[in-house]
Amino acid sequence: MRVAFQGEPGAYSEQAVFDYYGDVETKPCVSFDAVFDSVESGDCEAGLIPIENSLAGSIHQNYDLLLRHDLYVTGEYLLRVRHCLIAAPGVTMTDIKKAISHPQALGQCAGYLRSRGIQPEQAYDTAGSVKIVKESEARDTAAIASRRAAELYGMHILEEGIEDNAENYTRFLAISKTAVQPEGESKTSIVFTLKNQPGALFKALSVFALRDIDLTKIESRPLQGKPWEYLFYIDFVGAAQAETAQRALDHLAEYALTLRVLGTYARHRM
Amino acid sequence: MRVAFQGEPGAYSEQAVFDYYGDVETKPCVSFDAVFDSVESGDCEAGLIPIENSLAGSIHQNYDLLLRHDLYVTGEYLLRVRHCLIAAPGVTMTDIKKAISHPQALGQCAGYLRSRGIQPEQAYDTAGSVKIVKESEARDTAAIASRRAAELYGMHILEEGIEDNAENYTRFLAISKTAVQPEGESKTSIVFTLKNQPGALFKALSVFALRDIDLTKIESRPLQGKPWEYLFYIDFVGAAQAETAQRALDHLAEYALTLRVLGTYARHRM
Repeated sequence: MRVAFQGEPGAYSEQAVFDYYGDVETKPCVSFDAVFDSVESGDCEAGLIPIENSLAGSIHQNYDLLLRHDLYVTGEYLLRVRHCLIAAPGVTMTDIKKAISHPQALGQCAGYLRSRGIQPEQAYDTAGSVKIVKESEARDTAAIASRRAAELYGMHILEEGIEDNAENYTRFLAISKTAVQPEGESKTSIVFTLKNQPGALFKALSVFALRDIDLTKIESRPLQGKPWEYLFYIDFVGAAQAETAQRALDHLAEYALTLRVLGTYARHRM
Repeated sequence: MRVAFQGEPGAYSEQAVFDYYGDVETKPCVSFDAVFDSVESGDCEAGLIPIENSLAGSIHQNYDLLLRHDLYVTGEYLLRVRHCLIAAPGVTMTDIKKAISHPQALGQCAGYLRSRGIQPEQAYDTAGSVKIVKESEARDTAAIASRRAAELYGMHILEEGIEDNAENYTRFLAISKTAVQPEGESKTSIVFTLKNQPGALFKALSVFALRDIDLTKIESRPLQGKPWEYLFYIDFVGAAQAETAQRALDHLAEYALTLRVLGTYARHRM
């Protein structure tokens, strides 16, 4: 099996692929678009995309790509993001003056870097920054990336878990050309549009609330060409095929202008 | 009066400041953080920040900054974004091989550039790209920016309104240390958190729906330190001081863990 992800080898997304799919072949992609294209073309059987980080919020580009592509959501995976300070073998903590990484990773370790007097510097990628430090042979510079990135490039971990807030998780969605019907506890992702009238969203949420269906996430995105109108993405607990959910979706279809079930998949509990 | 905005002189945000406030002094800031700081410190009486674009969606950083700062929302302004292709005087359309601008502006003109065989190239800022073209004295390169940026740098507009989708608006919010009580049609922005239990958002929206209060926008942002829990930002039509709205907010306070009114302000209709 071959699974596409965005980033360099050693990226957090690749770590999530191995955690979720086990020992598969991975395909690094330069962009999220390229991940979707790889799956749609059949080059990869699946892709794994980050959809939300518990500190930084949703990755809206991937919500837009789910809408533009005719793929199914077939799984979710919650990755605990543990940042490592990584340098060349033999380098010690006191040698480090500068740390390079993706701006989001630098931001999540800002307090740590400040307390150690280490200067942050932006790079395009977390795993890519390990490669840069390795190739530069710099002894005063560290990279911030995953444990896997350090191992992959034969580099040394000076400290692990340097993020300021330990509650740092990224939720990934698995995408594929074929839908799944999971056993056990499941979740369903849908996307819909509503008539632009007072109370429309309230009515839409009522179809779930009146049936005690638990919503875990709501996200809105602009509707292209209709300023200040929105697409709504909702995740709820349960399978779309279950009778109660089916009734709720039929009910929602009475209010919705468009409605699409993106997929039902096994719920990941930490 | 002195008003802070993010960007270079000639930025769309500066144009919005002049449209909204009239003939005031403007203070360009390097970041949105700096705009908030300028207002909080009293260096500027007001700031104008983009909160949402009708094609690209919300500017989440500014939602987060509204929460972190103790300022009021005192106004809104909808700017129609019309991109111009800008070059040095004497340069004609057929000379242009390359166009530089902010990635979002390039994306919004991608179809136009492709049809003209012009190569896009990323720069850090729209108005800043006009400055770059001027200083480089390049005759095969144009910038994509506002009419005002062209005028400010004494450059020539080759074509105006080159965006692929004409429904391109940015909504700005005015922020200040003092709340306002507008006359005429108004809107109110609030932010709240809810208990993490089934139906919580449905109940929160019911306080508006049951009173026929029209919601114009809902946005969710992650609650720091509580993975998969959210802050909700809502805009509704009406003043917070009006009796119906006051009852709705009292009702919402029964469900909400925290609730803050960011401000009531005059509604801007296009």
